[in-house]
Amino acid sequence: MDNSDIILKLAEGDVRTIAKTLTLVENESEGSKELLAHMPFDRKVPIIGITGPPGAGKSSVVNACITKLMEQDKKVAVLAVDPSSPFNYGSLLGDRVRMEAHFNNENVFIRSVASRGHLGGLSTRIYEMADVLRNAHFDYIFIETVGVGQSEVEIAGIADITVVVLVPEAGDDVQAMKSGVMEIADVFVVNKSDREGAGRFASTLKTLIHTQDRNVEVISAVAIKSEGIDELLLEIDKLHQNNGLDEKKVHLLAHRTWSLLSAQLMKRFQYEEVVNELKGAMQQTNFNIYRYIQNKLQ
Amino acid sequence: MDNSDIILKLAEGDVRTIAKTLTLVENESEGSKELLAHMPFDRKVPIIGITGPPGAGKSSVVNACITKLMEQDKKVAVLAVDPSSPFNYGSLLGDRVRMEAHFNNENVFIRSVASRGHLGGLSTRIYEMADVLRNAHFDYIFIETVGVGQSEVEIAGIADITVVVLVPEAGDDVQAMKSGVMEIADVFVVNKSDREGAGRFASTLKTLIHTQDRNVEVISAVAIKSEGIDELLLEIDKLHQNNGLDEKKVHLLAHRTWSLLSAQLMKRFQYEEVVNELKGAMQQTNFNIYRYIQNKLQ
Repeated sequence: MDNSDIILKLAEGDVRTIAKTLTLVENESEGSKELLAHMPFDRKVPIIGITGPPGAGKSSVVNACITKLMEQDKKVAVLAVDPSSPFNYGSLLGDRVRMEAHFNNENVFIRSVASRGHLGGLSTRIYEMADVLRNAHFDYIFIETVGVGQSEVEIAGIADITVVVLVPEAGDDVQAMKSGVMEIADVFVVNKSDREGAGRFASTLKTLIHTQDRNVEVISAVAIKSEGIDELLLEIDKLHQNNGLDEKKVHLLAHRTWSLLSAQLMKRFQYEEVVNELKGAMQQTNFNIYRYIQNKLQ
Repeated sequence: MDNSDIILKLAEGDVRTIAKTLTLVENESEGSKELLAHMPFDRKVPIIGITGPPGAGKSSVVNACITKLMEQDKKVAVLAVDPSSPFNYGSLLGDRVRMEAHFNNENVFIRSVASRGHLGGLSTRIYEMADVLRNAHFDYIFIETVGVGQSEVEIAGIADITVVVLVPEAGDDVQAMKSGVMEIADVFVVNKSDREGAGRFASTLKTLIHTQDRNVEVISAVAIKSEGIDELLLEIDKLHQNNGLDEKKVHLLAHRTWSLLSAQLMKRFQYEEVVNELKGAMQQTNFNIYRYIQNKLQ
């Protein structure tokens, strides 16, 4: 198959082609760059990032969204980067039964993605994988990622709409919530809202949003009972219709472009070679890293 | 002054030259790269990173170390990156009196450094500033940084010895402590050890270190009473004598080299120009970022 055939098969929703193309770009196999450069991006499909702390019920929210969207005959893709997500085969045990329906539904495509290294963070190829899905036949693409470290900011760089899932127990933490999370959220879901203190927590969150002069919906939900999910999907559709090219989006894309340019340029150097050279050079008593770099660049 | 004069003046401990050279590299002014490439690094001076959560008393620990080292006629430099540090002039109010003695002591050089952006993290030029101090006349260089986000890992990339300061109240959190912090610590200080639960906390920490097969001292201290500071300084000296070029150090330096190489190569592109081009390009319905990057690199 040449690139035009692949692009055609993706648009038709051929599951084998989607899976193989994801693997191609995930592994940066030969030809992956040319394929990506030929894809006709149309931006009509919303990429919805779902993030939040471990245990907030991100997978349950995605799961409930899928069920609702199936009823509307929509086609949905999920990239699960969260290592603790039940969408990840590796940890499917407990939630397997609940998920199995979706795994066997041809309108749902689920792919788990290894996260990057011990510091958490997204796979470096998650952008490309999301872009492959954007060119397939889906109506909605969800990316689930655990909210630790840098990954919240990364997810905002990929997603058109970022959903931050919290639980009422986060109450005391919300004042101390990292400003990064507050800034990237396009909508908050307070999950497990049948627990005590949920109403108070949602109010505190709304007040905090208000003091930051932001206009972000806070949706109370009980994902495992499918409560609040209609409201979430309506809000996602509304946000997607209004989704303009604001300053934030341009800067996120510029940041991404910067990384890609840098990665391309750095192909001149082999990391392992640098490590080996440094091992030798550092034995010298007067090793000067700035001189070493000047020499490398000549 | 040419570079040889500057290097001579630094080694002599000329305060004006130290301050001006720090500003030169902080601003990446013309000639800063050449100057750094000519410096005779000798690695005899330990760079001690002090990190830990806000309120752990990092500044008090540094302060107590300075007082002890003054008694031994040592020369000490401090780079304070922590925005809440009393070493930072901006927030000196409360601790001003306590610090003033050091500010007026010619054997102590203190410089506050702006941290980078809203996600915290170190100034991008902190490496170069530390390298300038390494070539001056100091016996000890301290870098104080608040332990949030990526900065712990960054500090380990600069410091020869990383001291993580905690308080007994961290008790419940220690099990959940980010693995990043555990991995970078060369020595732990449990500050405010006259508080309730301090002994139990230190034991838990030791157990945790043991289960991770690491060999890291845990020092109980009350910095404002100077308790435990002799032990800390002894441990720092011991660590510095044993400080070899282990795998970890080589990889941290390789990581740093990688960043510097990348930054040099990326000077070909202007970030603002990319932003402006993207603003235009994103108006196109079929904007393809991969094609855009291919074109940029041609």
